[in-house]
Amino acid sequence: MPEPIDFYFDYSSPYGYVAAHLIEPLAQRHIREVTWHPILLGPAMKLSGNTPMAGQPLKGAYMRQDVPRLCRRYRLPFTWPEPFPVATVAAVRATIWVGDRDPALAVRFAKALYRAYFGDGRNIGETEQVLAVAAETGLDAAALAAALQDPALKDRTRAAVDAALKLGVFGSPFFLVDEEPFWGVDRLPLMDEWLARGGW
Amino acid sequence: MPEPIDFYFDYSSPYGYVAAHLIEPLAQRHIREVTWHPILLGPAMKLSGNTPMAGQPLKGAYMRQDVPRLCRRYRLPFTWPEPFPVATVAAVRATIWVGDRDPALAVRFAKALYRAYFGDGRNIGETEQVLAVAAETGLDAAALAAALQDPALKDRTRAAVDAALKLGVFGSPFFLVDEEPFWGVDRLPLMDEWLARGGW
Repeated sequence: MPEPIDFYFDYSSPYGYVAAHLIEPLAQRHIREVTWHPILLGPAMKLSGNTPMAGQPLKGAYMRQDVPRLCRRYRLPFTWPEPFPVATVAAVRATIWVGDRDPALAVRFAKALYRAYFGDGRNIGETEQVLAVAAETGLDAAALAAALQDPALKDRTRAAVDAALKLGVFGSPFFLVDEEPFWGVDRLPLMDEWLARGGW
Repeated sequence: MPEPIDFYFDYSSPYGYVAAHLIEPLAQRHIREVTWHPILLGPAMKLSGNTPMAGQPLKGAYMRQDVPRLCRRYRLPFTWPEPFPVATVAAVRATIWVGDRDPALAVRFAKALYRAYFGDGRNIGETEQVLAVAAETGLDAAALAAALQDPALKDRTRAAVDAALKLGVFGSPFFLVDEEPFWGVDRLPLMDEWLARGGW
């Protein structure tokens, strides 16, 4: 059985949102599972001296045009959320907590969080919205709310973000296929070829 | 007759080198010409607060792995030149001078400069190398050497770089298709679709 594809994403990343929509059909064509890794790009940006693309002159303007164009292409609901980008630490912690208990449910939750933010413009930077999306996904929101106060979950989240950074993950989406890195939703066609040919 | 595809590239950009190899077959499939625009990314980087990708932690390491992988994929000769990146102002001025006289020859010259730098590791940051590549391409190197001293060519180059910046060009490769921007060699598949469908 081949190793799963590691899929790293930041909930504030619209390109991660598009990738979350595309990665599973791609993986299935190659009989691969996907391991979803919600992360926070802040530490990687600090280390690499980058800032969020949306706030940069020129690149930010391009992104404003590019993201809706990409979502139209894949018939993916899209709205610019406000605020954007947003701190998604509660969303990441919540997803990790769910994932430790039920990975398949965590994937549904991750998709619902992305959809809430970029599809419906709900502010998933707020813990209440994260809990609301959890409830809509059939999770025990009260248990999750309690877990979000637990220092152990904070440590667990920090460790997960650190582990991604150690693997060289610096953007969203970011993929590892048998340790081979692919950065960006626009690299999916090349990754598709890589999987089909077993590298080159 | 549809408008040509505008192709912006920096000679220090390995992704521009790959794109220079791929753009013409792509354009030909859509019965389009390509207008080649050598530029200098320095002013765009200054404006957007970016630095060359190669020097950034994490991103730089990814690029070191990614570029040779991409060149293997397209069976494109590749070597890491030294120094890299390099100031390519002489190469850009020379290409613009040739392009003002013979655009088709300027395209051959541009490909030869890219090939000299990323294929053969020759330092095209040095004017002597630019002139050597010019001579190998069948150009009048003595006339070019004289032109490179001409303040009018410097002004012409600065104006071309400024014009690109005004159009929002901030990276290499960068394409404009009927004013629609596409950034990055990994966006060529999407641009291909855009051309086929006339947008969406």
